[in-house]
Amino acid sequence: MRKRRNLVSNLLRISSTPPKSQRGRKLGKAPGTVTYLGSREGVVTKVTSLVYDQDDLVKSTVDAMASLSNPPAQGKTQWINVTGLSDEPRMVEIGNASGMSSLVVEDIVNTEGRPKVDEYEDYIFIVLKMLNPNGEGKILKEHIAIVLRPGQVFLYQEVEADVFDGIRNRIEQHSGRIRTRGADYLFFALIDAIVDHYFLVLDALSAQLDSLEIEVYRDPHPDTLYRIQQLRKDVVKIRGWMAPVRELVTRLIETESPLISKDTRIFLRDIHDHTIEINETLHIQREMAFGLMEIYMSNVSNKMNEVMKVLTIMASIFIPLTFLAGIYGMNFRHMPELEWEYGYYGVLGLMLLIFIVMIIYFKKKGWL
Amino acid sequence: MRKRRNLVSNLLRISSTPPKSQRGRKLGKAPGTVTYLGSREGVVTKVTSLVYDQDDLVKSTVDAMASLSNPPAQGKTQWINVTGLSDEPRMVEIGNASGMSSLVVEDIVNTEGRPKVDEYEDYIFIVLKMLNPNGEGKILKEHIAIVLRPGQVFLYQEVEADVFDGIRNRIEQHSGRIRTRGADYLFFALIDAIVDHYFLVLDALSAQLDSLEIEVYRDPHPDTLYRIQQLRKDVVKIRGWMAPVRELVTRLIETESPLISKDTRIFLRDIHDHTIEINETLHIQREMAFGLMEIYMSNVSNKMNEVMKVLTIMASIFIPLTFLAGIYGMNFRHMPELEWEYGYYGVLGLMLLIFIVMIIYFKKKGWL
Amino acid sequence: MRKRRNLVSNLLRISSTPPKSQRGRKLGKAPGTVTYLGSREGVVTKVTSLVYDQDDLVKSTVDAMASLSNPPAQGKTQWINVTGLSDEPRMVEIGNASGMSSLVVEDIVNTEGRPKVDEYEDYIFIVLKMLNPNGEGKILKEHIAIVLRPGQVFLYQEVEADVFDGIRNRIEQHSGRIRTRGADYLFFALIDAIVDHYFLVLDALSAQLDSLEIEVYRDPHPDTLYRIQQLRKDVVKIRGWMAPVRELVTRLIETESPLISKDTRIFLRDIHDHTIEINETLHIQREMAFGLMEIYMSNVSNKMNEVMKVLTIMASIFIPLTFLAGIYGMNFRHMPELEWEYGYYGVLGLMLLIFIVMIIYFKKKGWL
Amino acid sequence: MRKRRNLVSNLLRISSTPPKSQRGRKLGKAPGTVTYLGSREGVVTKVTSLVYDQDDLVKSTVDAMASLSNPPAQGKTQWINVTGLSDEPRMVEIGNASGMSSLVVEDIVNTEGRPKVDEYEDYIFIVLKMLNPNGEGKILKEHIAIVLRPGQVFLYQEVEADVFDGIRNRIEQHSGRIRTRGADYLFFALIDAIVDHYFLVLDALSAQLDSLEIEVYRDPHPDTLYRIQQLRKDVVKIRGWMAPVRELVTRLIETESPLISKDTRIFLRDIHDHTIEINETLHIQREMAFGLMEIYMSNVSNKMNEVMKVLTIMASIFIPLTFLAGIYGMNFRHMPELEWEYGYYGVLGLMLLIFIVMIIYFKKKGWL
Amino acid sequence: MRKRRNLVSNLLRISSTPPKSQRGRKLGKAPGTVTYLGSREGVVTKVTSLVYDQDDLVKSTVDAMASLSNPPAQGKTQWINVTGLSDEPRMVEIGNASGMSSLVVEDIVNTEGRPKVDEYEDYIFIVLKMLNPNGEGKILKEHIAIVLRPGQVFLYQEVEADVFDGIRNRIEQHSGRIRTRGADYLFFALIDAIVDHYFLVLDALSAQLDSLEIEVYRDPHPDTLYRIQQLRKDVVKIRGWMAPVRELVTRLIETESPLISKDTRIFLRDIHDHTIEINETLHIQREMAFGLMEIYMSNVSNKMNEVMKVLTIMASIFIPLTFLAGIYGMNFRHMPELEWEYGYYGVLGLMLLIFIVMIIYFKKKGWL
Repeated sequence: MRKRRNLVSNLLRISSTPPKSQRGRKLGKAPGTVTYLGSREGVVTKVTSLVYDQDDLVKSTVDAMASLSNPPAQGKTQWINVTGLSDEPRMVEIGNASGMSSLVVEDIVNTEGRPKVDEYEDYIFIVLKMLNPNGEGKILKEHIAIVLRPGQVFLYQEVEADVFDGIRNRIEQHSGRIRTRGADYLFFALIDAIVDHYFLVLDALSAQLDSLEIEVYRDPHPDTLYRIQQLRKDVVKIRGWMAPVRELVTRLIETESPLISKDTRIFLRDIHDHTIEINETLHIQREMAFGLMEIYMSNVSNKMNEVMKVLTIMASIFIPLTFLAGIYGMNFRHMPELEWEYGYYGVLGLMLLIFIVMIIYFKKKGWL
Repeated sequence: MRKRRNLVSNLLRISSTPPKSQRGRKLGKAPGTVTYLGSREGVVTKVTSLVYDQDDLVKSTVDAMASLSNPPAQGKTQWINVTGLSDEPRMVEIGNASGMSSLVVEDIVNTEGRPKVDEYEDYIFIVLKMLNPNGEGKILKEHIAIVLRPGQVFLYQEVEADVFDGIRNRIEQHSGRIRTRGADYLFFALIDAIVDHYFLVLDALSAQLDSLEIEVYRDPHPDTLYRIQQLRKDVVKIRGWMAPVRELVTRLIETESPLISKDTRIFLRDIHDHTIEINETLHIQREMAFGLMEIYMSNVSNKMNEVMKVLTIMASIFIPLTFLAGIYGMNFRHMPELEWEYGYYGVLGLMLLIFIVMIIYFKKKGWL
Repeated sequence: MRKRRNLVSNLLRISSTPPKSQRGRKLGKAPGTVTYLGSREGVVTKVTSLVYDQDDLVKSTVDAMASLSNPPAQGKTQWINVTGLSDEPRMVEIGNASGMSSLVVEDIVNTEGRPKVDEYEDYIFIVLKMLNPNGEGKILKEHIAIVLRPGQVFLYQEVEADVFDGIRNRIEQHSGRIRTRGADYLFFALIDAIVDHYFLVLDALSAQLDSLEIEVYRDPHPDTLYRIQQLRKDVVKIRGWMAPVRELVTRLIETESPLISKDTRIFLRDIHDHTIEINETLHIQREMAFGLMEIYMSNVSNKMNEVMKVLTIMASIFIPLTFLAGIYGMNFRHMPELEWEYGYYGVLGLMLLIFIVMIIYFKKKGWL
Repeated sequence: MRKRRNLVSNLLRISSTPPKSQRGRKLGKAPGTVTYLGSREGVVTKVTSLVYDQDDLVKSTVDAMASLSNPPAQGKTQWINVTGLSDEPRMVEIGNASGMSSLVVEDIVNTEGRPKVDEYEDYIFIVLKMLNPNGEGKILKEHIAIVLRPGQVFLYQEVEADVFDGIRNRIEQHSGRIRTRGADYLFFALIDAIVDHYFLVLDALSAQLDSLEIEVYRDPHPDTLYRIQQLRKDVVKIRGWMAPVRELVTRLIETESPLISKDTRIFLRDIHDHTIEINETLHIQREMAFGLMEIYMSNVSNKMNEVMKVLTIMASIFIPLTFLAGIYGMNFRHMPELEWEYGYYGVLGLMLLIFIVMIIYFKKKGWL
Repeated sequence: MRKRRNLVSNLLRISSTPPKSQRGRKLGKAPGTVTYLGSREGVVTKVTSLVYDQDDLVKSTVDAMASLSNPPAQGKTQWINVTGLSDEPRMVEIGNASGMSSLVVEDIVNTEGRPKVDEYEDYIFIVLKMLNPNGEGKILKEHIAIVLRPGQVFLYQEVEADVFDGIRNRIEQHSGRIRTRGADYLFFALIDAIVDHYFLVLDALSAQLDSLEIEVYRDPHPDTLYRIQQLRKDVVKIRGWMAPVRELVTRLIETESPLISKDTRIFLRDIHDHTIEINETLHIQREMAFGLMEIYMSNVSNKMNEVMKVLTIMASIFIPLTFLAGIYGMNFRHMPELEWEYGYYGVLGLMLLIFIVMIIYFKKKGWL
C-alpha cells in the first residue's frame, strides 16, 4: 500500500468533510445557535476595514465591534474583512453590531453549509465556497460568507489566504471602475473573483484528466483506477459547490432589493454565464472520467487477452511435442521405430514440422 | 453462508417493509378505516401533555381523551405526545377529540405511508420518517405524525425512543427562544430535530462508504459486493423518505394558513436548505456506491489477470523444459547425444539458458 | 431448454400484448369504429344493475339496454356492471343508450389502450388496468373502463373475476359511508380498489426480488439472469400502466366537472398519494433488478477467478515437479546422480521441498 | 463477412440518410431555395384530384397547376395528391398556385427535415415520416407533407406506395363519417393512418426483440450482438421521427386556426394518445434491447467459464497423474519400488484413487 | 506509441482549449477588461466594409474606425467584417466607435466564451462557434461574434477562412432576396450559414462512426477504443457549442427588439428547426459511440473466449495422451503389457481412440 500513498499525494487534495463529532455538536441545539464546524479552530479572529471613495482610501483594524454598526459616510464604501470564524462569541458580537439575524451568523460559521443567498430587508447574505489551487496540486477550499448592507460589504473567511488580492490592488491603484462605484459593485467583484478561480480548478482537473488518459493507454495499473475514482469524487464535490451558485446569481439578478443597482446586475449576468460554463465543463469532465474508467477496464481485458495468448501459444506448441517425446519414451519391448537407424532424426524432423505448422497457424490467427 | 451473516450484522440495519399480510389487511376496507400497519403492535398507547408559556411549565399524563379538545389558555402552548400507535380505537378517540378527519387518523397509523403534508381548515398535518442511528451500526426508523392546531402540537410516534430530548431540555431549561414562541415554533422545532438527525445517518453511510472503499482496494471479496449492494439499497430507501420532505417543507413555507407565523417561516427556510443538502449528499453517495461496484469488478479482473500471469509464467517456462527432458528420455537406439560424455551437462546448460531467456522475456513484458 | 421452462413457470405471469393480427384489425378503419382487441372473445356480455340509497338496495340483470338511459331516482345511485367486452354490437347499443360518444365505446373495447381520463359535458370516462395476483404467482391483468354519469356508474370489465368484492360487501352490509354518498363516491371507491391491488403486485415483485437476490449470491446460474430480465420487463410493463394513473387522478382532482363533489376530491388525493408511492416503489425495484444483474455478472467473474486459481495452483505445482522427474528420466549415459545410492530419495525430498514452497507461496497470495 | 451479410438481410431495413453530397447541395443557397434531397429522383411528379361531398365523388388528374388555386365549391372537399417530389420547378409551380410560402415548398422537398407543423394565415402545413412495413422485414420510409387549406388537402409523397388505401376506400364506399365531414377531417384521417401504421412497425420490432432474446439465450454468437446494435439504431431512428409528432399533434389540438373544427380536435386527441403510447413502447423497446446486450455479454462470460472449467478439470486430473508416472520413469539405479512385484499395480491403483478423489472434488464444487 | 499517433491523425481534429496560462491572464482583472484568449495572436486586424442596397454595392477597407459610428444611408445595409481579434486596443477602438459596451468587447475577444445572445437598447450581440471541416478530416473551429445595429452588421472572426462565401456571392450576384432586405436579414443569413455548416460536421462524424463500426466488427484493436473515445469527446464538445444556440435562436425569435422584423423571425424559425435536428443527431451519435464501446468490449471477450477454446482443446486432448505415454515409460520390472507383442500398437490405438472421442466431444460442444 505504500506505493499508492505516494501516488495519491500527487492528486488534487480538497479538504474533506469534518469528522462526525463536529456535525454532532449541532444536534439538539436551538436553530440560530452559532456553532463553528470547520477545522481551522486556532485562527484568531481579525477584523479589518477598508473605506474608500473616488478620492480617499482608509485602511484600519477594527477593535471595537460596535463601530461596525455605523455605515460609512454617504458616497463611501466600506469593506469589512473578517478572518477566522472559530471564535463564536466574537462572531455573535459582529453580527449584533451590524444587525444581522442570528440565523445568518449561524450560517456564517457553519462551514458545512452549501452556497445560498438570503435576502433580508436591509441586507443580502450569501455563502460561497472558495477554491484556490495553490499551484502544488493542492486546492485550498474555504467557506466564504459575504453580507451586503448599504455602503458596507462584510467578507467572512476562515484563513487569510484568499483570491481577492486582485481586487485589493484595483482599489489601491485606483484601476478600473471599482473606486467610482458603490458597495454593490464591490459585492459583485468579490463573487466574480471567487467564480473566476473555479476556472483554475477546471484547468487543474483537465490536466489531471489528460495525464490519466495517457496513463490509461500507456501504462494502466490498479492505482490508475484509484486515481480516476478520486478525480470523479473531486468533480462531483466541486459540482456540489458550484451548481447552487448559478441559481444564487440568478436570484441576485432578479432581486427586487434596492441594494443592487441596475448596472451591477448587468455585471452579474456575466458571472451567470461563467457559472453555466463551469457547470457544463464539470459535466463533461465527469463524463470523460467515466469514459476513462471504461477504457481502463477494457485495457485490463486486453492485457488478459495477451497473457492468455502467450499461454495458449506455448502450451499448444509444446504439449503435443512433449506427447510425441513421451511416446518414444515408452518401454515396450516391440517398438520397431526405436530400432530404425534414423528414427531419432525422423522424430526430431516431425517435431520441427509440427512446430512450424503451429507457428503458421498462430500467425494466421494474428496472435503472433 | 455463515461468514456472510456475520459481516452483514456490521451493516446499517433499517427496519424493512412489513410482511405482505400487513398491507393486505387494508384491502377492501373503506378509506378512512384506521388500520395500524407497523410491527410494534404490543406498545401500549401513552398520551402525555406538556403545557408551557414563558413562565409556567406543566407536565401531565392524559387519561381522558376528551380533555384534548380544549386548546390551552391564550398564550400557552400544549405539546401532546402520543406514543404507541397500534391501539386503533384509542387512535380514533384521540382523533375525534381533537377534531381530526378520519383520513388523517388513517394516515397517522399507516406506518407505510410516505412523508406528506395535508392542510385542513384549522390544523396542519404532516407525516415524516424519523431515522435515529443508535450508535451500534443500527438505525432506528420510526413513523412520525405531527398535527399543528392553534396552541397545540400533537406528536405521534410508535415507540418512546426519539430524537426530541434536545427540545424537551430546551423547554425545561428555558433555553433559547422556544418558551417565548408559540405552537408553530414547537412544530418547526420537532421537524428540525428529525431532519437534523438525517445528517447522523449520512455520516454513518459516509463512514461505511469509506470503509468499503478501503476494502475494495485492499481486500475485495464477494461479501464486499454484497455490502455495497446493501448500502445502495439503504441510500435509495433513505432518499425515498427524504425526497418528499423537501417539497413538504416548501409547502409549509408557502402555505396561506395563519397557523404558521412569518417568523417561523424563516426558520423553515433553514430546514429547506438542509433537505436540499441531504438530498444532494445522498445523490453523491449513491454515485459513489455505484463507482465502488465498478472498481470492485475491475479489481476482480485485475486479480484474475494476476492469476493468469502466474499460470502463464509457470507453464511457459516449464513446458518447453519438460519437452526437452522428454526428448532425451526417448529410447531410440541411435541417439548420439546420449553417448556424449558431457551431453547431460550440455542439456542442463541449455535448460538453464532457456529458463533465463524466459525470465528476461517476462520481465520485459512487466509480468514479473 | 426444458429446465428453464419450469423455472419460468414460477415467475409472475402477466398476460402479454395481443398477437399482431389483432392490432392490424383496426388499420384502415375509421376512428370511432368499435373493435375489440382483447383475447377474451368468448365471454358473453352480461349487464347487471345495483341501485341503492341509504335505505334500499335493488339488484337486477339488465336485458333491455334502453332502460340504461334513465338515471335512477333522485338520491339513488346505480352501479351498472358490464362483463365481457367482445360483443361489439352490444357495446355500441349500451353506449348509445347511455349517450356515450362512439370514441368512448371504441376506447372501452380497445383493451390495448393506456390508462386515460376523458371529460365530456355530462359524463367522465376513465380507462385503467386492473392487476390482480391470484396467489399462485400469476397476475390477472384486465382492461377496465369506468363511466361516471349523474347518479350512474358504468363499470366495464373483460371477465367476471375482479377486485371489487370488498365494495360490494360494503354496499350490501351497509358498512362505512358508501351507502350514504353518491355516484362519485362509488366511482372513487372503484378506482381506489384497483390502485390498492397494485400494492399486492408490488409485494409479489418484492418477494421475487428477494428470492432472486438470495439466488444470485448463493447459487447463480444462467437461468437466474433470465429471471432477472423477465422481472425487469414486468416492472417496466407495470410502470407503463401505473405511471399515467397518477396524472389521471390529478386531473380528476382538478376537474371543474360538477360530477365530482368536493368531499370526493379529498378522497382522490389519497389515491394520488398511493400512485406516487407505487411509482416510486417501482422505480426502486427497477434499480434493484438492475443491481442484481450487475452482481450476477460480477459473481460470474468471481467464479471464473476461482476456477482459474485451481488451475493455476495445480499447474504451477505439478509442472515443475514433472519437469524434475523428466530430467532424471533422460537416458544419458553419463548422469552421475543416477548412480548415487540416495539419489532417488534426494530427488523425492527436493520435490517435497518444491511442493511445500509452492503451497506456502499460494497461501501467502491468499489463493488457498 | 459473407455470413453476416445474410443475417443482416433478415433485419428490418430502414432507408438510411442520404449520402453526404446531398446535404451539401443546400450549402450556401438562400433559404427558400427548393432543393430535393431524397433518393427517389427519377419519379415523375403526378398530381391527382379527388373532389367529394356527401353526394358526389369526382376523380381527375391535374395537368394545369393553376386550377389548384381555386378551392372546390362550398361544402365540397378536394384531396390533391402529389406523388414524386424530385421535380423542383413543378413543386414551385404547385406551391405558387396554391399560395404557399417558398419556405414551405422547401420543406416539402427536404426529405431530411424532421416532423413539424407550421401554421400560416390561411393554411396549415405539416411534415411527417410514413413508415410502412412491406411484410418482408423491410420498412418503407417516406417523407410526407400535408397542407390543409379551406376545402383542400394537399398530400405530398415521394412514391405511390402508401398507407392511405383505407381512407380512399372509405371515401369511395361512403363508409363512416368521412364523406359528411370537411377537409379538416380528411386532414386528420391522413395523419391518423400514418400514426396507426407505426404500430405495425412496433410489432415488427417487438417480434425481432423476441427472436433476438431467444437467440441470446440459446445460441448467442457475435452476429447476435451486431443485430441487437442494429435494432437499437432502428429504435433510436424511429423515436427521432415519432417524438416530434406528439408535440405536433398537441399544437394542432391547441391551434386557434379556424381551419380545424372543434369536432376534429376531439379526434386529434385520439392520435395524441397513440403518439404517447408509441413513444412509451419505443422507450421500453430501447431498454429491452439494452438489456439483451447485457445478457449477451454475460452469456459470453458464462461460456468462457464453462471452457475454463473443462480445461481446469482436465489439467487438474491428469497433470498430477503424469507427474506420478514421471517419477517411476526416472532412471535411478536405486529405486526399490521398481523392483516390487506389485509396484506397477500399486501405482496404477494410486492413480485411480487420485482420479476418483479429483472427480469427487469437482463434483462437490459443482463443476461436473 | 508511434502507430497510434498515425491513426489519430486520421481523426477529426478540433482545436482544443487554450493552455492554462491563457485563462489565467484574465484572473484579477476588472470585468470589461478586453483580453484576447485565443491562439491566433499574430493575425493583423483587418476591417472591411460592404455597403449595399437593391441597386448599389460598395466594397471598401475601413481604416478610420470613427467612420463606423455612422450608420449607412437609409435603406442601405452595411456589413462590417473584422478579421483578427488579438489586437486588443483596436478592438476597444472599434467597440467605442460603434457604441458597444466594454462587456461586449470583452466577450468578442474571449474566444473561450460559450454561445450567447445579449440584447442592448440599440444593438443585439451574439457569440457563436463556427465549425468548418476543411475536407481533410480536420475541422476548423472559430470564435464568431456578430453585432446587429440599425442598418449595420458587425462580423468578428479570428482568421479569414470562413463559411460566408455563399452569402458574399448572393450579395454580389444579386441572387435571392438578400439585396432587397435589410440588415436583420443579413444577420439571419450569417447565423444560418454557420448552423448549416454543422451538418457537414455531423456528416463527418457519421462517416467516422460508420468506419469505426466496421473496424469494431472486423478488426478491433486497442487503438479502436482510443478512437471511439476521441469521437465521443468530439461529439460532447460540439454539443457544448451547439446546445446553447437553440436557446439563443429562440430568444432572437421572441425578442421585442425592433431590430428584427417579423419576416426575419419566420426565417429564424427555420434555423431553430435545424438546431433541434443537429442536437438530436448529436444525441444519437453519442449513444451510438457509446454502443460501439460496448461492442468493442464484448468483442474482446469473444476473442478471449476463442483463445481459451484453443488452449482448452489442445490441453484436453494431449494431456491425457501424454499421461498414457508416461505410464508405459515407467521402469517397473513387472509390467506385463510391455512384454506383449502388440502392446505398443494397442496403446497407439487406445490413444487414437481417446483423440477421436475428444474431437467428437468438442465438436458437440460447438468449440470446433
